Amino acid sequence: MMKPLNEAQITVVGLGLMGGSLAGGLRGACRAVVGVSRREETIEKALARDLIDRGTTDMAEGVREADVVVLATPVRVILQQIATIGPLLPEGCLLMDLGSTKTKVVEAMTELPEHVQPLGGHPMCGKEISGLDAAEPAIYEGATFILTPLPRTSEQALALGRDLARAVGSTPLVLEAERQDFLVGTVSHLPYLMACALVATADDTTSPDPAAWKIVAGGFRDTSRVAGSDVTMMIDILLTNQEEVLKALDVLQGKLDELTRLVESGDEERMRAVLSKIQQTRLEMFP
Amino acid sequence: MMKPLNEAQITVVGLGLMGGSLAGGLRGACRAVVGVSRREETIEKALARDLIDRGTTDMAEGVREADVVVLATPVRVILQQIATIGPLLPEGCLLMDLGSTKTKVVEAMTELPEHVQPLGGHPMCGKEISGLDAAEPAIYEGATFILTPLPRTSEQALALGRDLARAVGSTPLVLEAERQDFLVGTVSHLPYLMACALVATADDTTSPDPAAWKIVAGGFRDTSRVAGSDVTMMIDILLTNQEEVLKALDVLQGKLDELTRLVESGDEERMRAVLSKIQQTRLEMFP
Repeated sequence: MMKPLNEAQITVVGLGLMGGSLAGGLRGACRAVVGVSRREETIEKALARDLIDRGTTDMAEGVREADVVVLATPVRVILQQIATIGPLLPEGCLLMDLGSTKTKVVEAMTELPEHVQPLGGHPMCGKEISGLDAAEPAIYEGATFILTPLPRTSEQALALGRDLARAVGSTPLVLEAERQDFLVGTVSHLPYLMACALVATADDTTSPDPAAWKIVAGGFRDTSRVAGSDVTMMIDILLTNQEEVLKALDVLQGKLDELTRLVESGDEERMRAVLSKIQQTRLEMFP
Repeated sequence: MMKPLNEAQITVVGLGLMGGSLAGGLRGACRAVVGVSRREETIEKALARDLIDRGTTDMAEGVREADVVVLATPVRVILQQIATIGPLLPEGCLLMDLGSTKTKVVEAMTELPEHVQPLGGHPMCGKEISGLDAAEPAIYEGATFILTPLPRTSEQALALGRDLARAVGSTPLVLEAERQDFLVGTVSHLPYLMACALVATADDTTSPDPAAWKIVAGGFRDTSRVAGSDVTMMIDILLTNQEEVLKALDVLQGKLDELTRLVESGDEERMRAVLSKIQQTRLEMFP
């Protein structure tokens, strides 16, 4: 029998931007929120900010009495933690994660011992600043919280995962792991690489001119924003979703080639047709 | 003798987002703001919104007593207007424009009759929505307002242009036309084409999946925002800054190739070096 959310002890492993914010959002919605961090200092900060009820640097101690454990570390650390955490978890414990890519996480979760209920998770929110100092529960509000259950995940475990997502203000969305990785490859990881390419381009060409930074308007600022994302997190994402990211990059390069030929052609009628269709699509995406 | 700004009648030709906002921002800072528009309806709207003192659909009438005329139409319309407006302007009139590209505008301005003082202008602000309904004087506040004087532009005319920019809350920045076109090619026009390529990529691959739009987070939204820009304005920009835009696209494609090879390599150390440098550059660009 799984406890309902309001009676559950939830342990969040990793108190960075995502874990710290989740912990804070769950306080009051469950019996207790326990934080696990490698550094004592981080736990003290999380306590001072009222994001957790208590904390520890000892993983075994932190998860021993947990009804739900949420791994909120970079994806490749999550993979290592899944490989070793099983024996530490109590009977019937729900093990979730917040990693941005899901195929490899769900694959690793199949190896968990029988007594654990696994559920992949990926909240579609964040900030370009990382770390506990940037944490605020509000980032989860209004976000889609993707859940990727395994065939062995019980209905009850999935329901508890949904309740957890709703408790922080997010909307749960159940997806297959492969499908989520394909989708985020284009709508999330590709924009990061595009923003990086733009910053690198400006850095090479216009940056040496001090006037360049005086004339930067909102367009460049917005388009390049995610290039400031946490590098460790992004490397983990790119390496665990390599195939989908490369496919998305290939389509993007093709589109840029088409746009380049369009500008070269100077064919106003065709420019109007192509650019108007794109403008219309953007308006439909975000009405 | 040129009149100081507070005694000047300023005529704004074209009451769209940029012209309507400028007109509204200048009210009170000068003797009178006159609006010229092709459509009576637009003038009525501008009057109702208190953006102009009076308006007309007749260009000759609108500029007859102007001390300053600002062309706020798309770049290629500006080029046509410069070619015909000269004889309509009174002695000593300052003729400015708000076009996003400046080389061709300044070139056209060299043909103006002697009695006119020409000055190119490009305020680095805007919105992805166009038209008078979107106009608000506040868009000029805090923006850099590029001014591109000609060799024949008097000190007094340039000073009046600076005063006009400051009156709407912008910071004037004097640049050579060619240099401004090179810089905005990368920091403004390139982000537009990149955003277009991203939208077209998503439209081809992930859009058919309804889940795609539930999981779109801030990254995609920001990175694609300028793809919603006014198409007529953007075609004018791309066609009057074709060479610089194509150069910028070429550098960007090279950067995307490098990033693609980086992701393919899976070389974590090199990824960290490259992506950290880009992250650092972005942080320095927008501290």
